Amino acid sequence: MLSENRYFDSNPSVRKIGLELYENVVDLPIISPHGHVDPKLFEENKPFANPTELFIIPDHYVFRMLYSQGFSLESLGINAKDDSIVEEDSYKIWQIFADNFYLFSGTPTGVWVSHELETVFGITEKLTSKSAREIYNLISKKLQSPKFLPRTLFEQFNIGFLATTDGASDSLEYHKLIKESDWNGRIVPSFRPDAVVNILAANWKSEIEKLSSASGIDIIDYQTFIKAIENRRQFFIEMGATATDQGVLSPYTHELSEIEANSIFKRALFGIVTEEDQNAFVGNMLMEMARMSCEDGLVMQIHPGVLRNHNDIIFKKFGLDKGCDIPIQTEYTKNLRELLNKYGNNSNFKLIVFTHDETSYARELAPLAGHYPAMKLGPAWWFNDSIQGMKRFREMTTETAGFYNTVGFNDETRAFLSIPARHDLARRVDCNFLALQVSEHIIDLEDAHKLSYELTNGLVKKAYNI
Amino acid sequence: MLSENRYFDSNPSVRKIGLELYENVVDLPIISPHGHVDPKLFEENKPFANPTELFIIPDHYVFRMLYSQGFSLESLGINAKDDSIVEEDSYKIWQIFADNFYLFSGTPTGVWVSHELETVFGITEKLTSKSAREIYNLISKKLQSPKFLPRTLFEQFNIGFLATTDGASDSLEYHKLIKESDWNGRIVPSFRPDAVVNILAANWKSEIEKLSSASGIDIIDYQTFIKAIENRRQFFIEMGATATDQGVLSPYTHELSEIEANSIFKRALFGIVTEEDQNAFVGNMLMEMARMSCEDGLVMQIHPGVLRNHNDIIFKKFGLDKGCDIPIQTEYTKNLRELLNKYGNNSNFKLIVFTHDETSYARELAPLAGHYPAMKLGPAWWFNDSIQGMKRFREMTTETAGFYNTVGFNDETRAFLSIPARHDLARRVDCNFLALQVSEHIIDLEDAHKLSYELTNGLVKKAYNI
Amino acid sequence: MLSENRYFDSNPSVRKIGLELYENVVDLPIISPHGHVDPKLFEENKPFANPTELFIIPDHYVFRMLYSQGFSLESLGINAKDDSIVEEDSYKIWQIFADNFYLFSGTPTGVWVSHELETVFGITEKLTSKSAREIYNLISKKLQSPKFLPRTLFEQFNIGFLATTDGASDSLEYHKLIKESDWNGRIVPSFRPDAVVNILAANWKSEIEKLSSASGIDIIDYQTFIKAIENRRQFFIEMGATATDQGVLSPYTHELSEIEANSIFKRALFGIVTEEDQNAFVGNMLMEMARMSCEDGLVMQIHPGVLRNHNDIIFKKFGLDKGCDIPIQTEYTKNLRELLNKYGNNSNFKLIVFTHDETSYARELAPLAGHYPAMKLGPAWWFNDSIQGMKRFREMTTETAGFYNTVGFNDETRAFLSIPARHDLARRVDCNFLALQVSEHIIDLEDAHKLSYELTNGLVKKAYNI
Repeated sequence: MLSENRYFDSNPSVRKIGLELYENVVDLPIISPHGHVDPKLFEENKPFANPTELFIIPDHYVFRMLYSQGFSLESLGINAKDDSIVEEDSYKIWQIFADNFYLFSGTPTGVWVSHELETVFGITEKLTSKSAREIYNLISKKLQSPKFLPRTLFEQFNIGFLATTDGASDSLEYHKLIKESDWNGRIVPSFRPDAVVNILAANWKSEIEKLSSASGIDIIDYQTFIKAIENRRQFFIEMGATATDQGVLSPYTHELSEIEANSIFKRALFGIVTEEDQNAFVGNMLMEMARMSCEDGLVMQIHPGVLRNHNDIIFKKFGLDKGCDIPIQTEYTKNLRELLNKYGNNSNFKLIVFTHDETSYARELAPLAGHYPAMKLGPAWWFNDSIQGMKRFREMTTETAGFYNTVGFNDETRAFLSIPARHDLARRVDCNFLALQVSEHIIDLEDAHKLSYELTNGLVKKAYNI
Repeated sequence: MLSENRYFDSNPSVRKIGLELYENVVDLPIISPHGHVDPKLFEENKPFANPTELFIIPDHYVFRMLYSQGFSLESLGINAKDDSIVEEDSYKIWQIFADNFYLFSGTPTGVWVSHELETVFGITEKLTSKSAREIYNLISKKLQSPKFLPRTLFEQFNIGFLATTDGASDSLEYHKLIKESDWNGRIVPSFRPDAVVNILAANWKSEIEKLSSASGIDIIDYQTFIKAIENRRQFFIEMGATATDQGVLSPYTHELSEIEANSIFKRALFGIVTEEDQNAFVGNMLMEMARMSCEDGLVMQIHPGVLRNHNDIIFKKFGLDKGCDIPIQTEYTKNLRELLNKYGNNSNFKLIVFTHDETSYARELAPLAGHYPAMKLGPAWWFNDSIQGMKRFREMTTETAGFYNTVGFNDETRAFLSIPARHDLARRVDCNFLALQVSEHIIDLEDAHKLSYELTNGLVKKAYNI
Repeated sequence: MLSENRYFDSNPSVRKIGLELYENVVDLPIISPHGHVDPKLFEENKPFANPTELFIIPDHYVFRMLYSQGFSLESLGINAKDDSIVEEDSYKIWQIFADNFYLFSGTPTGVWVSHELETVFGITEKLTSKSAREIYNLISKKLQSPKFLPRTLFEQFNIGFLATTDGASDSLEYHKLIKESDWNGRIVPSFRPDAVVNILAANWKSEIEKLSSASGIDIIDYQTFIKAIENRRQFFIEMGATATDQGVLSPYTHELSEIEANSIFKRALFGIVTEEDQNAFVGNMLMEMARMSCEDGLVMQIHPGVLRNHNDIIFKKFGLDKGCDIPIQTEYTKNLRELLNKYGNNSNFKLIVFTHDETSYARELAPLAGHYPAMKLGPAWWFNDSIQGMKRFREMTTETAGFYNTVGFNDETRAFLSIPARHDLARRVDCNFLALQVSEHIIDLEDAHKLSYELTNGLVKKAYNI
């Protein structure tokens, strides 16, 4: 059973303050400004198929750990692109998960799943080889009840705002249908241009064709490309978007002359571009996206520093997002300089920067965010979205950036059911951090109360214009 | 009101030991071997003008945070080089500071300022929008009393030694006047050659002219340049200096042949130097400074790894030291090798190395300082001069370098009033670290008592030959 | 006197759980799969000469600290290659150590030595200038007793498995003699090919001659070189080896064509190779070693990122392993990619990776080990084999890699007597980490009990096929 005290310091005086602060925020709505849940889920509002499709198949945190211990992705039901035989017996897959759930000891997935089982399904028994069948059956049964439909859960989870991530050419049809429906759930898109910006990717030209078609602008050169992007941003804004989201290998920023940019763009259309071209083009597009944000008001998010699809065999067979993205060292001070010099002094512009490289927290990101009005720090991200990861984030950023140059928590998840678990964990860890500061007389209890609200709802609403 | 227990672990048994150790050192004199207070302050010994000129204008920690939240430097009274209108109403500026003092929650500035208000001015009320006026008036009034003159505060603060930082061509007139006066405050200069070493800087040639004139040596080539520096070091030694101080982008060290060095120097006199020349010349000058230290006994300090004036707009309008210096990653193992190979085995030579890149603590700096007799570790520096920053410093350096290859604390401040606050905080954090080690039976209480003295006064006096 | 509570959190509730977990594992045999003890010690089974030769001469952790504080290596009895006069009075050296034992406050050496003095020799008095003579005499006397012979200590220490590290051409005669003896101590070799792989080293050609002679294969080109290595691995397997061990400057991996490899090899035989050749050749040999491990089943260990012999003066005068090896920043994500793409999906292959660069724990190593079936994380290594170092290792790796992608502890020591001290410390620190997780309700007590066994014996036996 979940302890009320979980994730709080075991020193009773700290825990007491922490729980008091947590009381302030436990019932606040969930604001989720950055994530990857599929909006279709809420438009269709169909029952989830079974526990395996809920907990395992969509969650690369889960299957990457099982893979690391020798279970093939096929045996875990992950669809292959080739004609490999993939396990179709959902229960068999669930049994592997249950047999090996001890592997998640001490990981965020371990505590999120326990939270979900208990708070969503009322299961307080531990997931083991023995309990696997009973738990599977119990969840399966509940999933058929109207109480477990996506929209009902959305409301039960007290989600006040949910942003998805959507390609530049996405029709946003599900967002539109939801908006037009009588359902009041607030689900908005975020503009992610990666696919039309990565000129080296195999499918780039087809992405450009989609962008032409979506924008109604015939993209024949750099100028029309930029116009099409501006056009789509406008559409996203009409559909409720407040932010963009961009994943880049490096946060290098440098503006090209229009002639240079056009020359690379034209070469890309002919399919003859180099890695240098790609880097230069992406660096230039970060400048363009910042300029557009200054003009149209969308909050700009960047998360650099992950080498995607590190494992060729898995990528070729199973595609993207299969747990094979591995972080690399990332430099911000020099790379962001041109962008920050040009747009960073504009306090109407907001640039939220994430990292996977914790060495940049105290050394680069906190000093930058503690100076430039436009720049804010995104929370501990991805692998660092964890108890220790969040502690390190606060310990290494607060003293230089303060709390007020950060932007609250976001769950960044594809796994809808894990949203409350993730936010609850973040609230606990933040309240615990504040409690430690109070008990060491670094801040007083009055400020800690205010901050517990700010870290939960205040700062995120301000940062994302919600 | 300040708690007696502040910054100590909230576990009562640890706190008890920590307070016991702190009792040993609370009344020891402040030894400040590295800082940026203006000696003129103590020669003139005039009253401080008002709270704003005391707390805000000289402290880039303060105004960078306000700037990051959208307040212009003009509105904070920072003088611009152009004809921008700058706020002249000191009280208006103070009100902004008070309105936004909550931004400093969890930052060193937050706790330093609270310490200063209470211990220097007897103010126990929190600085808020409401209390701003009363606190401003109270401080303003006190500043007119003779008790608040710089020399009186210096004595009240129990400062036993204060080193300033001074350019190579500085006349040190204020140091001289203080020395000749009947006042006994010990204020000595430190030799900082940066301005005459940075051959790429716009004002380098005029700096060389000043150096010629200060040294009485006509600088026409590299040889005369080196002679002039040696001459000035001698003058600084006569004026009481025990150390040099050098800020460099990279700690790269490599000795040039005299022909190479002279060739770069000559090109610099003609104004035709490249960044490569600059790097080579600085790397060579670190070798020269080490050689000179072996000869004349000045302790050598280097603090690399900060990209100065990151924000062009602020730099052009307001100049240096406006909170826009941002750290970069820094490599020590390879870069310091030539210097350490040539001079590092000499235990009479002392090289104190600072860093802003905490990743080098355990990986590079502690192993180097734990081997080379000449090398010592400077304390957690600048942005890391903070509660968490100091904890990380001890946690990451002690096990490999030991306590005895470190050199105590220094405040490195421009803000005179913050000196006691900073030293008090450092003493508390160090005593708390020792208390944790005692309570986990890593060291015994007897050693902890000795160490509390060493970390406060013993090691710094030994390291800086005081 | 050693406290029973040492290294456990001072919070009584955490400490209680920690001690309960420690009770599980305190009597488990020591499994030491990676170290540098000389097997000759156990074959000859002669008494240790005196305390100085036991504690100081073979331990670079000890004499590097004394050197850093100004004691020459000659004064510490370290043999020079030239005709320098080296202190021969063992007691004089011991007195220096005792006089300066306070330098080791807060270091692993400090706590290991205290542990050894008390648990091996029954000495509970602190080592100081005063107690030096008495302690020296007491140890000296005990060393003459049969209870303190190497084999007896091996048994008393409850060492269940001890792997040594041995060059590719080593005859393993002592391993053989031990195996053939009636003594049951399990001491096995590990295959370390560094000397025959580092084609740039001055003695490489003579190493190749030794390899020819040991393998009986006339090495005339790359092909015969590879055959000779395969041959020696087979011999090591026959002698009980379960693993290889390779130290490299960088973990760069890239397979050369046989023509390229042969061309470099031939140039090396002629003594004309560059640093680029060396890097390419080592990167290729990592690929070869991985291939061979897939074929012959030896576990592959790599530990990159140390710049050896940083101090030229010491290296020239005293040789290798004199405390002058300094870590450098190390990149894994890109460097290991080729190796992991080719062999990392093979769950029969095991690659154990160590690091000295803690920045890679959370950013690169845990994500890689949390995905690739073949890759496991070696424990906190060398300078990081310490209380804080191990804490950081668990804090930064567990959440992404889990506990089960790590491989337990290894002592990696040359100092035989320190083995129980090191394992005891590791068990305490790991049990304390688990206790913290239990008391914060991250894992439950049942899992913590299982994990305490896994971290001590379970995972190491599985990882090294013991």
